[in-house]
Amino acid sequence: MSQEYFKSPKKKGKLAVFLSGRGSNFIAIHDAILEGKINAEIALVFSDKTDAPGLKIAQQRKLDTLSLNPKDFNSKQEYEQEIIKELKNRKIDLICLAGYMRILSPHFCRQFTNAILNIHPALLPAFPGLNVQRKALEWGVRYSGATVHFVTPDVDMGPIVLQAVVPVKQDDTEETLSQRILKEEHKIYPEAIKLYFEGRLEIRNRLVYIK
Amino acid sequence: MSQEYFKSPKKKGKLAVFLSGRGSNFIAIHDAILEGKINAEIALVFSDKTDAPGLKIAQQRKLDTLSLNPKDFNSKQEYEQEIIKELKNRKIDLICLAGYMRILSPHFCRQFTNAILNIHPALLPAFPGLNVQRKALEWGVRYSGATVHFVTPDVDMGPIVLQAVVPVKQDDTEETLSQRILKEEHKIYPEAIKLYFEGRLEIRNRLVYIK
Repeated sequence: MSQEYFKSPKKKGKLAVFLSGRGSNFIAIHDAILEGKINAEIALVFSDKTDAPGLKIAQQRKLDTLSLNPKDFNSKQEYEQEIIKELKNRKIDLICLAGYMRILSPHFCRQFTNAILNIHPALLPAFPGLNVQRKALEWGVRYSGATVHFVTPDVDMGPIVLQAVVPVKQDDTEETLSQRILKEEHKIYPEAIKLYFEGRLEIRNRLVYIK
Repeated sequence: MSQEYFKSPKKKGKLAVFLSGRGSNFIAIHDAILEGKINAEIALVFSDKTDAPGLKIAQQRKLDTLSLNPKDFNSKQEYEQEIIKELKNRKIDLICLAGYMRILSPHFCRQFTNAILNIHPALLPAFPGLNVQRKALEWGVRYSGATVHFVTPDVDMGPIVLQAVVPVKQDDTEETLSQRILKEEHKIYPEAIKLYFEGRLEIRNRLVYIK
């Protein structure tokens, strides 16, 4: 998998953005595309939640959207198979997880090796998983941040593309810390996608080199 | 233990510095004392290695030194008991681990609750343990750093006093990254001790507040 050598393609990319909530990173990515900063188009905004606010925004922005409810499928496998079919039909180059609250199966990940990015609101490998900002506050770290990484079957363990650091303040709440981190997320996620389709990301031995 | 409320004492502190190697942090601490930046004196430089280069420097600087070889004792318990006796004799207020390569027993830690600091060359909780810079490079993180923390029986898990961040460069080696981190260590370790004896560190629910 990502042990092998990989070089990202230099091309106009077809993106699928996966979200479960408001999708503020989706908006940041789309804005960057509209501003001509990323050589890509969003060919699909996908959600597991029919009522995800981000899905509505995508519709307002005239983007192709799809929501599939896992409960309408007999198994996770069937659910993912349907998603994979939709992605293949649209010749998606890169999947960007943007607050997508489901874990992709190893099978799914292997269908899109080196072609799934995620953003995580901490300096991985610190604070993987959920409730990340709360964990950072409970730990009492002085700095936290955000990480854009490739998605592999090991959740939150894939090769790191970019990180950004923010200070943690003594009077921070989950909300204030999240907001500070989110600002950085909205910078580094578009930047990572930009680098990807400039053909500038190489992976060797799970390390991402920016050329 | 550190669940309880703690406030560091405002006083001229008596320090013991523990080291196993060259003790560059020991030197940074001593220099800061000589420059009048820290209200403390080094009352003991202790090593588990008779030939630790840091011990020689301490002698040159006319500091009280002590080295005890664990092999000369029947057990770790007896070894630590002797160290504890020497520390109590000197009325040590704060122990600063500075590249001390032995893990203190829970018993030892409890003798000096909230009175042992350590510096770790990573942004804890990322990369605890040994070979820290190598781990950071193998992970491919974009930032690492240093952490001054209180020592508790859970190794590398105690309350964080200060952290500093450094970028990790694509062509870094363990050596170049270590050097960059060390520069920051030499700033934040003296700063943490300064705050300690200014009576400005409070611990509540494992969080360190700087007043």
